[in-house]
Amino acid sequence: MIEIEIKGYADDKIFSRVRENFEMIRKEYHEDTYFQHPCRDFAETDEALRIRVRRFNGHFEAFLTYKGPKIDSNSKTRREIEVPLSDPDKHAEILARLGFREVMTVEKVREKYYVDKGVVIALDEIDRLGKFIEIEALAESEDAVEETVKRLKEILENLGVKHFERRSYLELLLERR
Amino acid sequence: MIEIEIKGYADDKIFSRVRENFEMIRKEYHEDTYFQHPCRDFAETDEALRIRVRRFNGHFEAFLTYKGPKIDSNSKTRREIEVPLSDPDKHAEILARLGFREVMTVEKVREKYYVDKGVVIALDEIDRLGKFIEIEALAESEDAVEETVKRLKEILENLGVKHFERRSYLELLLERR
Repeated sequence: MIEIEIKGYADDKIFSRVRENFEMIRKEYHEDTYFQHPCRDFAETDEALRIRVRRFNGHFEAFLTYKGPKIDSNSKTRREIEVPLSDPDKHAEILARLGFREVMTVEKVREKYYVDKGVVIALDEIDRLGKFIEIEALAESEDAVEETVKRLKEILENLGVKHFERRSYLELLLERR
Repeated sequence: MIEIEIKGYADDKIFSRVRENFEMIRKEYHEDTYFQHPCRDFAETDEALRIRVRRFNGHFEAFLTYKGPKIDSNSKTRREIEVPLSDPDKHAEILARLGFREVMTVEKVREKYYVDKGVVIALDEIDRLGKFIEIEALAESEDAVEETVKRLKEILENLGVKHFERRSYLELLLERR
């Protein structure tokens, strides 16, 4: 499965338009901890390893996600593999023993909206970075990527998005250091 | 928590003595897949990373276990960190992407017997290696290790064990190659 994801800079107006026009799925709180590989520079290989702790409606969930390099020059599309974790702290301890170093934890408030079958918009408020809008869809194969990217971009542009961003929140935060 | 574990070579007689004298907890089938670190030689650092798939009474469980170096010259005592996995195949895929290579899968039939509060004996039949007996207890701190090792060894000796083995099944199998 290929995750197609496009991200743009947002403001109060764009947030309001989404809130008025789409149905909210839920509000989530994310704590994303990113790890550096013991002997490979993820910044160079364009990979990522993340533990996400997600809270919503009193639930608590955690996931380990490997993100492969971007496979499309126009979006943030990557191959990703994700597994649920029942004990994220203990899992982080195993990663530490294996030489994976914690790079940073990104804190986020995310409102998710239903756009269309399989298409979701997220309004993200990122600690120290501000407001962003993401639109996401899943594609079965690489053939479908280009057209889907075009369609998703149009939706964002119609909502008033002018600047897109391919860098991850982690990258943006690291550049600010 | 420190896992204290002593292993000895066994035969039919030793297996019978255990079966007659202790209460069986259950019979388990293990498939243990061991991984090599992408940039560290676990054979040298005396560490291990394992995915265990365990079946018993129709149940299916999987765990990821990191084992640190042996901390006692007399036993197989190590620090270990273990987390349950809901999708071991997908987890193995993440490890592969991170550069961890599968070294070998060890298949085992294990009968577990209750000896005393916190003390368990396992009768192991290892594919290509034969019969072994393991006795295991958990210690809260390193101070308790020496005495516990002595006590566990005596129990095995009383059951007829003459030869002890500190090497893991993985190491024994790799030496046979």
